[in-house]
Amino acid sequence: MTVEVLCVGDELLRGEIVNTNLAHLAAALAGIGVPPARETCVPDDRGAIRRAAAEALERAEVVLTIGGLGPTVDDVTRPAVADLLGVPLRSDPEIAAGIVAFLRRRGVTVPEEAVRNQACLPVGADILPNENGTAPGIWCETARGRIIVLLPGPPRECCPMVDNHLLPRLRTRVPPGIPLPVTIRSCGLPESVVEQRVETALRELPGLTKAYCAEPTGVRVRIGSPAGDAAALTRAEQRIRGELGDCALPPGCPGLVHHIGDLLRRKEWRLAAAESCTGGLLGAAITACPGCSAWFAGSAVTYANDWKVAFLGVPDDILRSHGAVSAPVVESMLEGLLSRGAVQAAVAVSGIAGPAGEVPGKPVGTVFIGISLGAGNDVRRFLFPGDRDSVRVRAVGTALTLLRSALLEASAAPAPIPTPHTREPNPLRKETP
Amino acid sequence: MTVEVLCVGDELLRGEIVNTNLAHLAAALAGIGVPPARETCVPDDRGAIRRAAAEALERAEVVLTIGGLGPTVDDVTRPAVADLLGVPLRSDPEIAAGIVAFLRRRGVTVPEEAVRNQACLPVGADILPNENGTAPGIWCETARGRIIVLLPGPPRECCPMVDNHLLPRLRTRVPPGIPLPVTIRSCGLPESVVEQRVETALRELPGLTKAYCAEPTGVRVRIGSPAGDAAALTRAEQRIRGELGDCALPPGCPGLVHHIGDLLRRKEWRLAAAESCTGGLLGAAITACPGCSAWFAGSAVTYANDWKVAFLGVPDDILRSHGAVSAPVVESMLEGLLSRGAVQAAVAVSGIAGPAGEVPGKPVGTVFIGISLGAGNDVRRFLFPGDRDSVRVRAVGTALTLLRSALLEASAAPAPIPTPHTREPNPLRKETP
Repeated sequence: MTVEVLCVGDELLRGEIVNTNLAHLAAALAGIGVPPARETCVPDDRGAIRRAAAEALERAEVVLTIGGLGPTVDDVTRPAVADLLGVPLRSDPEIAAGIVAFLRRRGVTVPEEAVRNQACLPVGADILPNENGTAPGIWCETARGRIIVLLPGPPRECCPMVDNHLLPRLRTRVPPGIPLPVTIRSCGLPESVVEQRVETALRELPGLTKAYCAEPTGVRVRIGSPAGDAAALTRAEQRIRGELGDCALPPGCPGLVHHIGDLLRRKEWRLAAAESCTGGLLGAAITACPGCSAWFAGSAVTYANDWKVAFLGVPDDILRSHGAVSAPVVESMLEGLLSRGAVQAAVAVSGIAGPAGEVPGKPVGTVFIGISLGAGNDVRRFLFPGDRDSVRVRAVGTALTLLRSALLEASAAPAPIPTPHTREPNPLRKETP
Repeated sequence: MTVEVLCVGDELLRGEIVNTNLAHLAAALAGIGVPPARETCVPDDRGAIRRAAAEALERAEVVLTIGGLGPTVDDVTRPAVADLLGVPLRSDPEIAAGIVAFLRRRGVTVPEEAVRNQACLPVGADILPNENGTAPGIWCETARGRIIVLLPGPPRECCPMVDNHLLPRLRTRVPPGIPLPVTIRSCGLPESVVEQRVETALRELPGLTKAYCAEPTGVRVRIGSPAGDAAALTRAEQRIRGELGDCALPPGCPGLVHHIGDLLRRKEWRLAAAESCTGGLLGAAITACPGCSAWFAGSAVTYANDWKVAFLGVPDDILRSHGAVSAPVVESMLEGLLSRGAVQAAVAVSGIAGPAGEVPGKPVGTVFIGISLGAGNDVRRFLFPGDRDSVRVRAVGTALTLLRSALLEASAAPAPIPTPHTREPNPLRKETP
């Protein structure tokens, strides 16, 4: 089965947004064995959409469009596709009622015409429900038995619709027999080292496809068997895990933070963070994991120096003599978390994300990251490349990787650990004026 | 002049990487008045590249390819384009010497064949220098006077080559006279309401293009004049700003957080945040703005209840009687920030992001957001739709929008000017209980 993707939106062709929807959809399609054969992006123009959709339907059995389903006049994917299919658009009162109810829950009213537009379907089409926005997805089949599905553009609406409604339905149309690719997540190794180890692992298993994806917290490896050899895939996964050792996350573990949570839960420990340059990004990465309230207390985002003093008890003279971006300050942040936060595990970050702020000996990208599990602090210095955003993202990824290593080591250690939850929170000092 | 982009790479069509090159290139092209009319992405397949390039050259005067210039067997953009142009590929010794020198500086040696492949050019082509990698860009002109340029895939090589070598050369071919589109950012209004106001504003200014892009913190409107009427664009911007009133960000302001920073700086105020369900995402959004250290103190991410008590002084009995997701707790978080954080402006968020955690009367998506500028607290209740990520992102966008409104009001006080545009209704209504 050949699948193509057609993205619609001036904002994509003007570089105002990055096409994250495509990556999500393409990965989902690759996961059921039908990566798109081509992707096309056209502007919010009815003629351009119609032409590109017609060309795609000549080449592919399934065409998936993204974008152009909004309520405004420049959202024209619906009429373009209805034109192409040669059927009229009709507004569906039930869909319209659903949109009005959705908006009412958010306390928003919009013009009736906008609702009517978003409730329009080509006659004969089905809908894919949209739990996260107003425009439903639209599933159409052509007279020749080809399929064209219209998906909404906002990633928060598009991606869940792909996972929850498009894939289950599309899967029933995919010829069976190709096993799903196997994904192995690693952390703490650069991509080139992961690749080297995977190549070593697979030396005697030819015919498998390998793909590497570097993420902020590690490298994702995906192994596929286009020949449909499920046994080879299983052997491949075992060998790769053997080569990666502790750097591989456990099978089925959806990410580094989930693994950290598992390790903490097993010890009945609680974690806290202290952040300066990451400004909350570390806490946000941790709390993106559902259920983290079982093992995460909070993050003290002490961006200003007086907050480091008031909320974490960092001594003023250490700040003055070493500067906020220094090992002694990060150590002091860790100690503040352990003594005031009633936690057994602490991670702290202080650095210079740029573009300004560098000081002699500490260029932009200098970041100190510290971990403490109660018995001593481990503080390391890094120099991350790239812009502000890059430095912050790398600091978060590195902090989480170091934290996991420390927790793994602590789990292996035979020595007994101090009883959890014995520390009481100390009342915070008010800041001196 | 019509420009198209052709991206090459299996990794893009398997969703392993996000196409950031396209956003960079498209923005650069839009900046010189020639946003791409279409983008196509094909796999690392010589036939697919050749077909897609041929189709693009039928439609466009300039075709820019990205990717497939690496040293390995799956990098086939060069031979595909040479096929299409009907000219042979020839390895250039000077380019080969440059590649070897570049690799030597990095302490890398590669097989001679890999160097020879990367030093190949279609006969008659020019190169664009690559300061950040091995493969130079390749500039070819067809017999019909059309241009096809081959750019390397790694973003660190592609993006500087676009800025430093492609644009200066391409610019000399672009007909002058098309004014750049005008962008106006709004916040606090749904996309359909923004559209209605823009349509009203432009009733007597026909011939302009309009595009709307919904972002977490507002809607971006872009107005262009394909006919090259710069005066109409200026009038359009004035009228749209008039219709949007306070919901428009000031001209040139790159985003909502920047505007908040400007308002705080003008008052010499400092801001702090207290977060529960957003877990640091609000602090991260604020600190994404360079220079925020001038007006941002920090964020107390008090995820656990005992942290709300220890770090913000939220009284235990209020937590027990109202629950952490309640107006009294958010008020108490605001008071904690003002009394302990040495700030004049405070924003606090507590909610249920899901998927678990709902309690009777407080479904997943219930979020309380509070703002205080010292004189009283304004706490509102919202119900945001969608999954965990969605609820958190919407909570951050809404908190920042409410904060800006409050700061604008405070800036206007004590003598508000009674023009129509200072009395915009607040779009974010309270949810009826």
